[in-house]
Amino acid sequence: MAKIFWEDFAVGQINECGRKTVSAEEIKAFAAEFDPQPMHLDEEAARATLVGGLCASGWHTCAIMMRIVADGLLRDSSSMGAPGVEEVRWLAPVRPGDTLSVRATVLDKKASRSRPGLGFVDGFFEVLNDAGTCVMTVRCNLMFARRKPASPASLPA
Amino acid sequence: MAKIFWEDFAVGQINECGRKTVSAEEIKAFAAEFDPQPMHLDEEAARATLVGGLCASGWHTCAIMMRIVADGLLRDSSSMGAPGVEEVRWLAPVRPGDTLSVRATVLDKKASRSRPGLGFVDGFFEVLNDAGTCVMTVRCNLMFARRKPASPASLPA
Repeated sequence: MAKIFWEDFAVGQINECGRKTVSAEEIKAFAAEFDPQPMHLDEEAARATLVGGLCASGWHTCAIMMRIVADGLLRDSSSMGAPGVEEVRWLAPVRPGDTLSVRATVLDKKASRSRPGLGFVDGFFEVLNDAGTCVMTVRCNLMFARRKPASPASLPA
Repeated sequence: MAKIFWEDFAVGQINECGRKTVSAEEIKAFAAEFDPQPMHLDEEAARATLVGGLCASGWHTCAIMMRIVADGLLRDSSSMGAPGVEEVRWLAPVRPGDTLSVRATVLDKKASRSRPGLGFVDGFFEVLNDAGTCVMTVRCNLMFARRKPASPASLPA
């Protein structure tokens, strides 16, 4: 049963989640399946690329962030998924051996206009490596069930 | 050796890529590793959720799109990756057995101001299932090496 509902999120709230260490084998396995470009597949070939060495696919970093947030924030919540992502910034390469954590900040929250049973939480996710470098930021609007459905009169126009 | 360089992209150009059929096993395996939420992990549990049945993680759909675009568009190109993603819209669930393809449209292209050797291609990616439904759209600014570096005088201010 969910313990955290839409009502429980506060604007400005920060949750620290994680951590997850990424191996060269995981980087190459994800790339072989989903993003077979030289910088993600092979150390030698990666050295000749813009990033100068093996690094995780940006989509792999997104997937790892999702897992960290699922374990650290969504597992005990009334999460109903997300309609999309507002922005992803890949700021620094994720290297083999990096340990990633996530800082999740609530930027805003809004009741749904059409569905009294759910609300939106506008989240900003910073993915940090163990040196404290922010390797990725993501803005994403999450949906959560409400503990108690809104009365129609209280919903935004 | 790359055959497609930044110079070869034209605004308005459309490339059709794919296809890839997604199995229930792949949906569950991705979810178990990266997005362990009920609607992606188990048919029975998924029926009780907003999407009403097993569906792929949105990040899985992003990863499949990446693979289709890597094989269909980037493999023979001078792709240098991307600094991020402008927007992802998850429009419809990806179900077991769906066969996905990608329509990639060039919205804009720009020379790099600081790096004469590369340019940006602003791409819009529509992921379609075999019923023709658009399940996801992504806007992403890709970097490609130029066939011939720009002369400094020709670069945007």
